[in-house]
Amino acid sequence: MDIKKIKRSEDYSAWYNNLVKNADLAEHSAVKGCMVIKPYGYAIWETMQSELDRRFKDTGHQNAYFPLFIPKSFFSKEASHVDGFAKECAVVTHYRLKVDEKTGEIVVDPEAKLEEELIVRPTSETIIWNTYRDWIQSYRDLPILINQWANVVRWEMRTRLFLRTAEFLWQEGHTAHASAEEAIAETKQMLDVYADFAENILAVPVIKGFKTANERFAGALETYCIEGLMQDGKALQMGTSHFLGQNFAKAFDVKFVTKENKQEYVWATSWGVSTRLMGALIMSHSDDEGLVLPPRLAPIQVVIVPIFRKQEEQTLVLDKANEIAQSLKALGIRVKLDAKDNQSPGYKFAEYELKGVPVRIAIGPRDVQNGTIEVARRDTKEKQSMDASDVAHKISHLLEQIQQNLFQRALDFREEHITTVDTWDEFLHTLENKSGFISAHWDGTTATELKIKEACKATIRCIPLDNKQESGNCVFTGKPSSQRVLFAKAY
Amino acid sequence: MDIKKIKRSEDYSAWYNNLVKNADLAEHSAVKGCMVIKPYGYAIWETMQSELDRRFKDTGHQNAYFPLFIPKSFFSKEASHVDGFAKECAVVTHYRLKVDEKTGEIVVDPEAKLEEELIVRPTSETIIWNTYRDWIQSYRDLPILINQWANVVRWEMRTRLFLRTAEFLWQEGHTAHASAEEAIAETKQMLDVYADFAENILAVPVIKGFKTANERFAGALETYCIEGLMQDGKALQMGTSHFLGQNFAKAFDVKFVTKENKQEYVWATSWGVSTRLMGALIMSHSDDEGLVLPPRLAPIQVVIVPIFRKQEEQTLVLDKANEIAQSLKALGIRVKLDAKDNQSPGYKFAEYELKGVPVRIAIGPRDVQNGTIEVARRDTKEKQSMDASDVAHKISHLLEQIQQNLFQRALDFREEHITTVDTWDEFLHTLENKSGFISAHWDGTTATELKIKEACKATIRCIPLDNKQESGNCVFTGKPSSQRVLFAKAY
Repeated sequence: MDIKKIKRSEDYSAWYNNLVKNADLAEHSAVKGCMVIKPYGYAIWETMQSELDRRFKDTGHQNAYFPLFIPKSFFSKEASHVDGFAKECAVVTHYRLKVDEKTGEIVVDPEAKLEEELIVRPTSETIIWNTYRDWIQSYRDLPILINQWANVVRWEMRTRLFLRTAEFLWQEGHTAHASAEEAIAETKQMLDVYADFAENILAVPVIKGFKTANERFAGALETYCIEGLMQDGKALQMGTSHFLGQNFAKAFDVKFVTKENKQEYVWATSWGVSTRLMGALIMSHSDDEGLVLPPRLAPIQVVIVPIFRKQEEQTLVLDKANEIAQSLKALGIRVKLDAKDNQSPGYKFAEYELKGVPVRIAIGPRDVQNGTIEVARRDTKEKQSMDASDVAHKISHLLEQIQQNLFQRALDFREEHITTVDTWDEFLHTLENKSGFISAHWDGTTATELKIKEACKATIRCIPLDNKQESGNCVFTGKPSSQRVLFAKAY
Repeated sequence: MDIKKIKRSEDYSAWYNNLVKNADLAEHSAVKGCMVIKPYGYAIWETMQSELDRRFKDTGHQNAYFPLFIPKSFFSKEASHVDGFAKECAVVTHYRLKVDEKTGEIVVDPEAKLEEELIVRPTSETIIWNTYRDWIQSYRDLPILINQWANVVRWEMRTRLFLRTAEFLWQEGHTAHASAEEAIAETKQMLDVYADFAENILAVPVIKGFKTANERFAGALETYCIEGLMQDGKALQMGTSHFLGQNFAKAFDVKFVTKENKQEYVWATSWGVSTRLMGALIMSHSDDEGLVLPPRLAPIQVVIVPIFRKQEEQTLVLDKANEIAQSLKALGIRVKLDAKDNQSPGYKFAEYELKGVPVRIAIGPRDVQNGTIEVARRDTKEKQSMDASDVAHKISHLLEQIQQNLFQRALDFREEHITTVDTWDEFLHTLENKSGFISAHWDGTTATELKIKEACKATIRCIPLDNKQESGNCVFTGKPSSQRVLFAKAY
């Protein structure tokens, strides 16, 4: 295969871009900042969607759909939200094109100017809470537990496929509750859903925590998050769940009559994950040969490559390969038998390695005679000859092992890359030489947080949920601190 | 329930709007022309999506995702496409908002003007064929069989929920082929997929045909369609499949090397259905009491309403209701046991009737004693007492009957409303008094087609695929004609 390989150790960023391209996951489009998600990449995203969607429904949520456009004035209604979101965004100002009579070119029709500009949604709290006002009168109308699968746009100048693009796909949950307690419980529940999905499906260990005031979602009282650690030692925020208090209810005047017959503002949460998870997936498991997919997420879990030279071997090998494929399918395994005859087995091996297929089965005439198959694991690159009897159960078990191994490997890496430091020198030294999370005392002020960021680009990724309380001194200012927080450079 | 009922015979249009609102399917949003699809409506759309998606994948297609925005210049590249689509559309001209220093209001930042305006996609042929150019070099890269689930925007002044909205949800298939024959076969295959879905899932009989030149998709050589007939005698175009020839390949310079080592332009198709299908569904089966859903599409196929007055009856009835619910679930039936105790059975009956739940089971203390249940069909409104033994299989069978009955009822209605006419007087008389499809001779010219439309608002819905060839005279001009075509007033 005529494909350029880049080693992670050479240039991690170039390796990432190259992998996304070569594994046919996504590419840049003709529209600056917008990506094309290619079929193989989209198939992985679809599996993520279906796994998440099932978890949302199991916890009582329903899907709905709200408009792509948000009237400009809506952004002014929640004071902190406007600062966060009404900045870099796509603004629709006109609703018609026409042919210019002089030049014959297509131009925007100046007559068709909108009275109020529309913003392509960067997130939907405003339009949704404006809608909820009509849906909620009494406590009997609560809770409202809604999720939306949608595209959103945040104008970005420096983009990277999946990690930071102007348009991206995501889900956004928006719930309405009768009490702060219930809303907080919902916020935490969805954080748990995200963590469960990340660890058990993506095989990416995450730290559950909450953000500092400075890193909070614009309009939230508390932002919970799951943070993953990528192979290059940088952190990636993989999902957030926000307790919004009554901010949006007040901004959009959404009140309800309580059981005690009082008027009260409604309590809100919102939570989301996006195609950014594709980036987390890639940077957690993949290697210099290409993508490595956890079996639960792989569009193709097992590929079977038949090997034969002579015509008379073909039927023999293909029959056996088909038989194995059928037995795997019967167990619900996503299997592909690649019998294309215009590509060599070696070419196919490289292609499926690049695409991260967890298990490769090769079978040749001698295997058929001996009742064996050759099984290769993508995660460890181990190859073994396996007795072909009861192959489906063996492979099913192997897929489970691979899923566990990927998680354990990523977990071991993460644990090795949480460094506890007590001095600023240690902090900088660790950041420079080891990277990963740095557990350090912080004086709790935004001022210090920003100074640290300015000094070394490390940010506070989160305050872990189960954080140990211990007294110490801020690593930067020396002021007293009651707990350590996790710093890292981040995507 | 405090809900206004409107009869179909009084005002069909008002009945439709009222139903969409009362059955909690959708509503108008704060953004002119854009709708909010509510959870119950969205659940129906999700079932449509999953049924369609399975059919697309079974016929070899993969999903992918292309950008929301299309550079303005792309629309100029295919001459007829620009006339059709680069008109009423949402135009993004700026990418930033800012706070006006004088007024403190949020305004569009004039500094952030895009060099080239971006159009919010009304359909994606242009951006996709611009992408395919890089994907296709040789016949080995063909066919490309891709579908996209997406939102699109076509600025509409007069909107109706689901039927005509500025933003709507749809799927658009875009395939690339090495020969005209293969592309035409694909176009027809997808028409068959749509027809199968419409008839077997929506229970809406459709006529497969192709459009006249005048009604073709902008850029297509041939537009195939499925046309349904609504209860008010108006036709609704439910899906289209276009043979695009080499038009988009030429516009975007997409060539491939053939097996014979020649350069040739690629052949294209595109095909789509949208949330408009929700309108077709509603206007095919529903009645004055509310929505009527075919079982295969119903989010809730069976609702069980327990009935009891005294506390001691409650356990008895609920136990039995639960037992029945479990037995239905075990057969894969989507069942809801509504045990809410703050609503009367009568209230619940009306609600589920309004929402079109196909089967209602009521069960009271006497039923438990007698080993019976009361079963009500939504389609015929028949009620019967049923022996509760082996209830799951009986209900499963009943659901199948209801599905068939809805289709047959709609088919009978459609067949009764295809009128063959030979004179212009008959044509007008039928249109006025009976409505439905009118089968009439037409001289084959766009001029006549447009005159007829101007005279009476009837348009040629399609030329049926299996059309009988017979000589006759155009119903309007008297000129010779070789076949009848189907006219109707349409949504």
